[in-house]
Amino acid sequence: MRNVKMVVAYDGIRYHGFQAQNRTGLKTVQGELEQALETLTGEEISIIGSGRTDAGVHAWGQVVNFRSGTRIPEEKVPFALNSILPRDITVREAEDVPEDFHARYSAKKKTYCYTVYNDRHMSPFWRQYAWHVPVGLDAGNMRAAAAEFIGEHDFTAFCANNTEDGNYVRRIYAFTVETQGPLVRFTVTGSGFLWNMVRIMTGTLLEVGKGKRSPEDITALLLAKERRRAGMTLPPQGLCLQEVIY
Amino acid sequence: MRNVKMVVAYDGIRYHGFQAQNRTGLKTVQGELEQALETLTGEEISIIGSGRTDAGVHAWGQVVNFRSGTRIPEEKVPFALNSILPRDITVREAEDVPEDFHARYSAKKKTYCYTVYNDRHMSPFWRQYAWHVPVGLDAGNMRAAAAEFIGEHDFTAFCANNTEDGNYVRRIYAFTVETQGPLVRFTVTGSGFLWNMVRIMTGTLLEVGKGKRSPEDITALLLAKERRRAGMTLPPQGLCLQEVIY
Repeated sequence: MRNVKMVVAYDGIRYHGFQAQNRTGLKTVQGELEQALETLTGEEISIIGSGRTDAGVHAWGQVVNFRSGTRIPEEKVPFALNSILPRDITVREAEDVPEDFHARYSAKKKTYCYTVYNDRHMSPFWRQYAWHVPVGLDAGNMRAAAAEFIGEHDFTAFCANNTEDGNYVRRIYAFTVETQGPLVRFTVTGSGFLWNMVRIMTGTLLEVGKGKRSPEDITALLLAKERRRAGMTLPPQGLCLQEVIY
Repeated sequence: MRNVKMVVAYDGIRYHGFQAQNRTGLKTVQGELEQALETLTGEEISIIGSGRTDAGVHAWGQVVNFRSGTRIPEEKVPFALNSILPRDITVREAEDVPEDFHARYSAKKKTYCYTVYNDRHMSPFWRQYAWHVPVGLDAGNMRAAAAEFIGEHDFTAFCANNTEDGNYVRRIYAFTVETQGPLVRFTVTGSGFLWNMVRIMTGTLLEVGKGKRSPEDITALLLAKERRRAGMTLPPQGLCLQEVIY
């Protein structure tokens, strides 16, 4: 059996997240990919994703792997699948990988991007890919605050309350804030992320940008480990899984 | 009565073009704007657009004007309308203009942009805003060909056959071809455009980019004035009315 790794991009708007659901009728990205693979190969294939993405969250570089006996050459796999898949899911790359490659367990780092559209009136072209902030944001203060997240910390204060995960320690390698016209892009690379962690960190940075908090508050929040003291969870449509690093 | 000018952006995917249709049940941008204005002012308002855009075509800078007795200050009008309008239509600006301003007749120039996504696999994020070209394009040759359009010409060869317009002469002021990663942006400014003219000109430039025609062919096509000799009409989703200049 081959072990095939694929890099997948998707517009998450129509989907109830990446991971297949037991409830019927809910479309998921995993479900669409498995159905397309079955159509292509005639095999019943289960794919492993690098992790879940929530309903409405996008991906440019989600990584999956699956076992198959298909003889389709690796470079043909994206073309074949893209001709079957709905147009909001694209297989960007496919390659044969060693037996022990596992999209989830082999992942070393992940990069997420959260996009904010910062102008008085929202652009109709960004409504499904960014969160609208109509008031001025201090990019310098947001950058200083983002830098406070870098390093190894307990992120209890920055994850959804009902996260069932015993270990809240994660390492952040980089956290940048870039502006490009009305767009503000928050890009964070970490060893892994707790549930809603990127959306809560970015929501807290926006409060710094609005002058409601100071950059130094981030360290205090990390130490306090209380979810209710951090900022709001931003909505899903601004979030995109950019890259998974192995 | 006030004469109010507005700059309107819209994602055209859901609409049967800009202009209100007599047939019922077809959503148009004009219809949505007039309905929102009626909700806001209590008046029955007809808006005048700078021109039609076809079904599926977008706008960043469509301009309209309308007469109204409303006392809402001009700077409040966009906020009020945007709170009523669907999220794929945004009023970017509104201002009181002199009595004789007419969105269509007063227009001096228009700028359209056609976006091509030039990579092996289409991005799910551009599927509604660009046309996918999976083969290599020679940007230098496309630029040389685009320059051939500049000046005053008879555009009979570059408009839909059933255009009922006695005068096919238009002036092109600028036609640029810019690449940015996988995106190729064709931006053209002219005194006005015939039906499908931008989509046919860009379709012909793509054939130059693919090496199927040479840049010098453009002048020959303009002189021949035969629609069937020019390139294909590109689909609407890559087209955007960027700006109307008065």
